[in-house]
Amino acid sequence: MNKNSSNIMALAPNTSNKRETVCIFGTGDFGRALGHKLIQSGYPVVYGSRTTQISNLIPKDAEVLGHAEAAQKAAIIIIAIQRQHYNFLTPLAEVLRGKVLVDISNNLKLNQYPESNAEYLSQLLPGSKVVKAFNTVSAWALQSGTLDASRQVFVCGDDVEAKQMVMNIVRALGLTPLDKGSLLAAQEIENYPLQLFPMWKFPIILSFGLAAFFFFYCLVLDVIYTYIYEKNNFSFFIAITIPNRVFPVMALILLALVYLPGIFAAIIQLYRGTKYRRFPDWLDKWMLCRKQLGLIALAFASLHAVFTLVAPLRAFVSWRTSKTIISQALNNKTEPLNHTNAWLSDSYLALGILGYFLFVLLGITSLPSVSNNVNWREFRFVQSKLGYLALIFCTAHTLVYGGKWFLSPSAYKWYLPNIYILSLIVPCAVLVVKFVLIFPCVDKPLTQIRQGWERNPKYSEQSNYIINRSAV
Amino acid sequence: MNKNSSNIMALAPNTSNKRETVCIFGTGDFGRALGHKLIQSGYPVVYGSRTTQISNLIPKDAEVLGHAEAAQKAAIIIIAIQRQHYNFLTPLAEVLRGKVLVDISNNLKLNQYPESNAEYLSQLLPGSKVVKAFNTVSAWALQSGTLDASRQVFVCGDDVEAKQMVMNIVRALGLTPLDKGSLLAAQEIENYPLQLFPMWKFPIILSFGLAAFFFFYCLVLDVIYTYIYEKNNFSFFIAITIPNRVFPVMALILLALVYLPGIFAAIIQLYRGTKYRRFPDWLDKWMLCRKQLGLIALAFASLHAVFTLVAPLRAFVSWRTSKTIISQALNNKTEPLNHTNAWLSDSYLALGILGYFLFVLLGITSLPSVSNNVNWREFRFVQSKLGYLALIFCTAHTLVYGGKWFLSPSAYKWYLPNIYILSLIVPCAVLVVKFVLIFPCVDKPLTQIRQGWERNPKYSEQSNYIINRSAV
Amino acid sequence: MNKNSSNIMALAPNTSNKRETVCIFGTGDFGRALGHKLIQSGYPVVYGSRTTQISNLIPKDAEVLGHAEAAQKAAIIIIAIQRQHYNFLTPLAEVLRGKVLVDISNNLKLNQYPESNAEYLSQLLPGSKVVKAFNTVSAWALQSGTLDASRQVFVCGDDVEAKQMVMNIVRALGLTPLDKGSLLAAQEIENYPLQLFPMWKFPIILSFGLAAFFFFYCLVLDVIYTYIYEKNNFSFFIAITIPNRVFPVMALILLALVYLPGIFAAIIQLYRGTKYRRFPDWLDKWMLCRKQLGLIALAFASLHAVFTLVAPLRAFVSWRTSKTIISQALNNKTEPLNHTNAWLSDSYLALGILGYFLFVLLGITSLPSVSNNVNWREFRFVQSKLGYLALIFCTAHTLVYGGKWFLSPSAYKWYLPNIYILSLIVPCAVLVVKFVLIFPCVDKPLTQIRQGWERNPKYSEQSNYIINRSAV
Repeated sequence: MNKNSSNIMALAPNTSNKRETVCIFGTGDFGRALGHKLIQSGYPVVYGSRTTQISNLIPKDAEVLGHAEAAQKAAIIIIAIQRQHYNFLTPLAEVLRGKVLVDISNNLKLNQYPESNAEYLSQLLPGSKVVKAFNTVSAWALQSGTLDASRQVFVCGDDVEAKQMVMNIVRALGLTPLDKGSLLAAQEIENYPLQLFPMWKFPIILSFGLAAFFFFYCLVLDVIYTYIYEKNNFSFFIAITIPNRVFPVMALILLALVYLPGIFAAIIQLYRGTKYRRFPDWLDKWMLCRKQLGLIALAFASLHAVFTLVAPLRAFVSWRTSKTIISQALNNKTEPLNHTNAWLSDSYLALGILGYFLFVLLGITSLPSVSNNVNWREFRFVQSKLGYLALIFCTAHTLVYGGKWFLSPSAYKWYLPNIYILSLIVPCAVLVVKFVLIFPCVDKPLTQIRQGWERNPKYSEQSNYIINRSAV
Repeated sequence: MNKNSSNIMALAPNTSNKRETVCIFGTGDFGRALGHKLIQSGYPVVYGSRTTQISNLIPKDAEVLGHAEAAQKAAIIIIAIQRQHYNFLTPLAEVLRGKVLVDISNNLKLNQYPESNAEYLSQLLPGSKVVKAFNTVSAWALQSGTLDASRQVFVCGDDVEAKQMVMNIVRALGLTPLDKGSLLAAQEIENYPLQLFPMWKFPIILSFGLAAFFFFYCLVLDVIYTYIYEKNNFSFFIAITIPNRVFPVMALILLALVYLPGIFAAIIQLYRGTKYRRFPDWLDKWMLCRKQLGLIALAFASLHAVFTLVAPLRAFVSWRTSKTIISQALNNKTEPLNHTNAWLSDSYLALGILGYFLFVLLGITSLPSVSNNVNWREFRFVQSKLGYLALIFCTAHTLVYGGKWFLSPSAYKWYLPNIYILSLIVPCAVLVVKFVLIFPCVDKPLTQIRQGWERNPKYSEQSNYIINRSAV
Repeated sequence: MNKNSSNIMALAPNTSNKRETVCIFGTGDFGRALGHKLIQSGYPVVYGSRTTQISNLIPKDAEVLGHAEAAQKAAIIIIAIQRQHYNFLTPLAEVLRGKVLVDISNNLKLNQYPESNAEYLSQLLPGSKVVKAFNTVSAWALQSGTLDASRQVFVCGDDVEAKQMVMNIVRALGLTPLDKGSLLAAQEIENYPLQLFPMWKFPIILSFGLAAFFFFYCLVLDVIYTYIYEKNNFSFFIAITIPNRVFPVMALILLALVYLPGIFAAIIQLYRGTKYRRFPDWLDKWMLCRKQLGLIALAFASLHAVFTLVAPLRAFVSWRTSKTIISQALNNKTEPLNHTNAWLSDSYLALGILGYFLFVLLGITSLPSVSNNVNWREFRFVQSKLGYLALIFCTAHTLVYGGKWFLSPSAYKWYLPNIYILSLIVPCAVLVVKFVLIFPCVDKPLTQIRQGWERNPKYSEQSNYIINRSAV
């Protein structure tokens, strides 16, 4: 036994005898880090281990005992061992009866086992009160105190009092407990640290695919076509010119894709005459990733803005400007101001800036701390009203800028339409259908349906009652 | 009765018998959505309804009983009916005695009734423990799980234990309860979902009014005057040139308006010789919307920055540049670099950028999650010290840029002063008075007053004790 | 005595008799402000004071009694007096036995006393339950309701029930209590309001020092050297040209300094062959301020971006452009497009924009509300993978832009290397060593060491067990 109160205890002189003893089963990295932190916070710690041999890695002020003896000394036992070794706890069932067992385990894969580790532990030891906690905290972060990622500790368990005891320890360690309810939540909590932006996967794949397609489309039309037919080598277009054609197209299409599922939902509801039927799965999933699509669209729009603003710094643009001015000077003539051009250039710039400004506002309101401070009505106002306004401005910006290409024959090199024309299909369709949907003769039945009215009540008899997401 | 344990129950096999039964009065949209969610989280649900007829819309695993029978089965009853039908609960007073009643109702208008719905319910059934909760959650959001707007559920009630029971249910549904204290808070909680940015109304109206005024002022001086006297049609100025004159003016004036009330408060305190008297109402209201004024000023400043940066992309600017260069080339002469101009242009740009940079820092620190992580001293340092520095930089930027117009006669077309001169009045006044206020002979008595000293103690005898806001 | 129920009580008619009475010792600014707020929230308030004389400054609805009498009327006593007067409470020990004492005091300096005020109070009155609270709230903010800085009230105490009672009061006042654990946390809570960005001090001093050095370095080479040897007065370079040389250099070096300590840590671990030994102190401190270094680097990068984008608006740049074009025009020749230049200019711009874009992403994920919503794996992915990608892009941007200076003799004015060369040393070193570290023959032992393997186990016998921070 190794209980020589040393300098660390001096930090907590007058409370160390007030705190309840905590037992830790397992002397691995996490068990030791947690033990250190607990001792620093004034908790007496006792380790339960197969070998009670003194190890230098275990905190000096902790006792090391056999499992049964250690468990008897404490009301709370932290199970810092891996799931596959849980069965060895079964013989201890009598000792552990009524004790609070804290499951801190993680898995290596999502949904690795049919039930969560904490539920499995609870089934093995039905007499104990199992609480899931600490699994989202890394041993390193715990010890170093640099908890940049998150101070939140998800806690769940069926016994309210046991949960409270664990949450008090969490707070004493300087972390923030977050009560996630009953042990049912353990599966979700165990999956949490294994996730890598799961909601972003589909939107990012979609964006990369579309962006790659448009990049090669532009490469063919702007570089390869020009090289073959005009013998001009514009390969340096790859760095800025072509990306700055792809980015705005992507931003506009993705922004339109944010509002398209709402249009589909409204049409489906109008056609079915009821809101009490489930949407197709693809529509449900699409609706759930609208925020991500919108933020990726904002990223593309931002890149487009900066790529556009650097234009005057480009050697190619300087050279083109010089050439135009010198040729005018050499011809001894000054062109008068073209008022139509001045109007067009100023209006597409102004439209683009205002659209982007609204877009950034949408982005700011989707920051968690901002959206937590607005109510439902305010959130919908910003995301729906201001969002559509942003879509209108951005579409108008593209129309004014790219409109001249619609009829120009040079827009159909190799019979392929210009990229501006492609980019306008989805947003224009969304805006036209939305415009039809706000006509009173369409809007009135739709509002009625969304308030619960049904055109054909027998329909819903066969269907499950699923509240429909279109109003979100 | 309709209790055939089906597939949904399978999700919660081993805890369903542990959770306490929840009763829901009312089978409307919200009652059904909440029932579904409760069953999914492992709660047995029983509906209280006038007709116990089986309806397909009600979750399959829920029981439907008469009100009295249903209420007897549960300790918690969720009242999902509208306020005007609350009286029908009076005959049930005996059954509901000692039960927890959860009021989830909302009104259609702010302060529709003299007392909140929850307090009204509490008065009708004084033997029950009324808790206000769930009113900020929409039925759709609850069912779909897309709680983008907010996972926060405001809870209030006079009985601490009842509140705790409701907060446990809130957590079990994956939402975050926020204890707002006693039932007195119910009015505020009921008003919350009806608000549409109440703190922003006045600042936005003020900004739009001022911006419209300056827009027409510029329109008259730059487009109409030029058209009449110089026969030049510069109507395209409406898109970029004029907005980019209005935006910086608005940004500067609004930023000065953020710091003006503090100046007024200091003068009033110095004049009165005490801080123990209430400020006039207009000053109080003005002080409470300084954050909003500052953020709108930041929006205008951002628009000004982008509208300025796109200048080289404008057809008009290119044309003007070409014209200048060509005329020099045709005259065979190269102008030497004007050092004064180079200094002026570089310094107003640098001042503007630094002012804007500080302005953005102010904006970032007013994000809720950032301002929650700084203490009072840090917040005041950023908002007061850095804020004044930003105001000084922005005023200097305008002075250096627009200073030449002060004395030029062309600035007084139709005897109207140039917009730059107008924009400088408020910020310069604020800075001059602030400069006077930090002189020791003024600052010392002011500091004393703010620490509680009174020049004329009898004054405060007649006044109410109201801590004064000037120090904020 | 002064108990005439007036208009303020009307706000809380039906709960005032439910709330427990609160006693306040001390009638200073904060005691009065808190009393007012408590009465508004429905709590009966009684003041304990030496003189029970009626003062107009004390809220009308509060009673004023002697200390002992006042204390007897309430279970909770708020100690709104200064630490140096705490001894006068010792004679009241018997009256205060078992009562909850709320210590709200602050100090004037960090760690002014050996123990915190709350612990001192607890030692003076061991029979009472001391709770620390409210010290982070200002009297003015409490009264005015403009709690912009923070609604969080840190609460700590050894008695869980007493703490709960105080937290209920905090909530009733519309504030958010944050349980910080036992009374041991009082020292930290008392220091909190005195801090002024403690984590930022070193990074800011370092940045200012480095920036000043580079500024004078550029001043000497670009302005003074030019003035002496070329007789050109480029003093206006001070406003934009030189800052825009210093900013990118600072951004790049600081970004590299964020990743340098991780490199050092890996080398130290590889050399020692174990992770169970503490890093040197300077490395520990450096690692803890990486976030701040990164954000300052982002600020410099943002300033660089804007200073670069305003180039076309500068009088000097316009003059230089005109001069070039006019001289070409006068020589009757048009230069052909230089493809190498076009490639170089476009690629360094594109690299810079992409690097800056990733940099901004890093900045957004370090906002507290965003980093609280990502798990450890996601946080490390963004901060490590994307961070290195940003460093690679930014270094490549500088290399492509400034590479030509390496061999040019004009880069060695006065035998001093050009600033671009200096700026590239640290980032290139970091990238080269990192590149070596990801080779399998180096990465494999490092990974083993980080998983707990030791090359020389006896080493760790002599060392303290300190989990090492390198993996963070």
